[in-house]
Amino acid sequence: MRQAAPLWRGLSASLLARRAAVPWQATRLYSAAAASQGVDASKLVIQKTEKPAELKKPEELVFGNTFTDHMLAIEWDKSTGWGAPKITPYQNLSLDPATCVFHYGFECFEGMKAYRDSAGRIRLFRPNKNMERLNKSAERIALPTFDSSTLVDLISKLVSLDSRFIPNKRGYSLYLRPTMIGTQKTLGIAAPGSAMLFVIASPVGPYYPTGFKAVSLEATDYAVRAWPGGVGDKKLGANYAPCIVPQLAAASRGFQQNLWLFGEEEFVTEVGTMNMFAAIKDKATGQNELVTAPLDGTILEGITRDSVLSLAREKLVPEGWKVSERKYTMPELWEASQEGRLLEAFGSGTAAVVSPVRTISWKGKLVDCGLKDGEETGPIALKMKEWIEARQYGDEEHEWSHLVE
Amino acid sequence: MRQAAPLWRGLSASLLARRAAVPWQATRLYSAAAASQGVDASKLVIQKTEKPAELKKPEELVFGNTFTDHMLAIEWDKSTGWGAPKITPYQNLSLDPATCVFHYGFECFEGMKAYRDSAGRIRLFRPNKNMERLNKSAERIALPTFDSSTLVDLISKLVSLDSRFIPNKRGYSLYLRPTMIGTQKTLGIAAPGSAMLFVIASPVGPYYPTGFKAVSLEATDYAVRAWPGGVGDKKLGANYAPCIVPQLAAASRGFQQNLWLFGEEEFVTEVGTMNMFAAIKDKATGQNELVTAPLDGTILEGITRDSVLSLAREKLVPEGWKVSERKYTMPELWEASQEGRLLEAFGSGTAAVVSPVRTISWKGKLVDCGLKDGEETGPIALKMKEWIEARQYGDEEHEWSHLVE
Repeated sequence: MRQAAPLWRGLSASLLARRAAVPWQATRLYSAAAASQGVDASKLVIQKTEKPAELKKPEELVFGNTFTDHMLAIEWDKSTGWGAPKITPYQNLSLDPATCVFHYGFECFEGMKAYRDSAGRIRLFRPNKNMERLNKSAERIALPTFDSSTLVDLISKLVSLDSRFIPNKRGYSLYLRPTMIGTQKTLGIAAPGSAMLFVIASPVGPYYPTGFKAVSLEATDYAVRAWPGGVGDKKLGANYAPCIVPQLAAASRGFQQNLWLFGEEEFVTEVGTMNMFAAIKDKATGQNELVTAPLDGTILEGITRDSVLSLAREKLVPEGWKVSERKYTMPELWEASQEGRLLEAFGSGTAAVVSPVRTISWKGKLVDCGLKDGEETGPIALKMKEWIEARQYGDEEHEWSHLVE
Repeated sequence: MRQAAPLWRGLSASLLARRAAVPWQATRLYSAAAASQGVDASKLVIQKTEKPAELKKPEELVFGNTFTDHMLAIEWDKSTGWGAPKITPYQNLSLDPATCVFHYGFECFEGMKAYRDSAGRIRLFRPNKNMERLNKSAERIALPTFDSSTLVDLISKLVSLDSRFIPNKRGYSLYLRPTMIGTQKTLGIAAPGSAMLFVIASPVGPYYPTGFKAVSLEATDYAVRAWPGGVGDKKLGANYAPCIVPQLAAASRGFQQNLWLFGEEEFVTEVGTMNMFAAIKDKATGQNELVTAPLDGTILEGITRDSVLSLAREKLVPEGWKVSERKYTMPELWEASQEGRLLEAFGSGTAAVVSPVRTISWKGKLVDCGLKDGEETGPIALKMKEWIEARQYGDEEHEWSHLVE
């Protein structure tokens, strides 16, 4: 097993040290200016719709296709800071065609959900984590930052107002899409002097309406999702559009998603738009290990990833498991699979919670990820889904769950 | 001198061969479908403004801040193909907040210019090259493609209609910004089922109103602009927003632009948003060489870059110069500078044509790029600007110049 792999071949240790040592001073300066006027939740203006939408039947919901009656929007300007938050009827944005979001990729977003618990109350799941990540994404592309808990409060207001859209049914939820865009309407490439943070909400059904359905992956090396010194660890629009053509190419060969590899070593990084986990039995000791790639700047800091790791440490380690954030490679997965030591593999993300993997196509081989015939999930993925949903839906009282009302 | 540097350390030759061999089949299939209904210039609808803008004084123009009376827009839908092209009064775009351009970076663009020649006629410069590149950019992010010459015809119509905005003054021009965005208004991450191509136009003054002003660069290794297998060779919005914070950081230390390096070898790639050229005297032979990085997938296929190379081969090679598209490194520039062999360096791009470089800050050293005290450009950059402008403004009749009317 690879213990001391070079962090990134092609980048010397001295370069990495230098990278860590370079203060991104301008960012700090810029953010300080941007925060001159913070978001003030007390200034919230609510304009209710006069045309409430008819609710769709829950079973007719398609992810991200229908939206609630209202949206939250907050405008920011370099000289005056954040303006008054507004909840208005869901409506089009009217933007000059020169607006920088159309040209230079000034956009970042979050995906999070509101759930209805068995008592009918509404809960968000670790919403501060999403707001912290949105701040990191925004800062990386010179967009303004904000106070995370203030935004959670405002999002809670939106969710309360549109709570009738959240089906009272396990597996259903209200998908929330906080988004920040640069709105400066000039073509010079510079830090946007104005921006807008908006939040829209879409009622969604369960990712697996009829139970798990394991996916097959194509290990992808000819296209590279993220790299050291890049922005693959941030939730920027920039990271998504370039992944579609490789996904279509994989689909044309019968594979649902790309397994993104990195470098000559063929490090496993992410799967589609999810983090990737593998459960491997150690060759020497026989110990079970749940492994995922470390947050080295090329991996999105998944909140579901963090929940999976946390639950694994809480519940699997006492059962003798090892939980590792470390680099691992396709040759390692292939060898484990050949020797019957690849127990299972799954992706993790907000939409599906976990997404079990059946096979990985790699160099003309089909890597078997441990599912038996007829099985659509392994035991760890199944337990993870149950453990996480118990906290999302409030079956288990836990600090991860944020009560809205 | 480095002759046989590994193409990319960290990527084996077999991986590179495999990359080249993988057909991006889905793209082809997709593009074929997308082209089912091409852009039909004969369907152009023109709606003229009723409120023509007052012209600004040429000397008051700021790049990309004011726009002409009209814009061109063509909508595309997966099932019906391209719709009728429309020239309308310049106006806001009204888009659903779920539109995919706001979330997933479905956007690409071009920068090109229209010039007024000494006879008052209007000329575009190599417009087909811009349209070919826009097609490559669009295809890479699953947006529809189009016939390049049809778009040049339509852009010519827009330019003719708004020709009064092009100052009759050397150094001035009409900057054109063709842009394509995904307009599908659902949150599922997939190839957009609808898109819009629009073109806006902004009258601009000379980049150097008072003559050249050489810039100082910060060699940047802690942030990496592009990567093999990434999309740094395409003109996508995705490539721009991530470069702003490093640029602000460089500016805070007194440097105007980043010189983007790659890898342990510290390959020189691009400068800010321009291609980079260096003129170096060979250590062994004394021959002068004009060098720029090769199009290996990490370098934008600059049209000015291509014009510079072409002119160098036409005019400098007969004078004994060598013209090279090859990898070169910061250590190589440093050594040449120390030995008085770094004759000059400059960036190339549509906005400035060429942008001379005075110094590069690198590892605590200041690399002198050959300008004498008081000089703001070297002879090659100066000649290049004159040669290219002669063809842009039609002083020299040349196939690169496309007569609009």
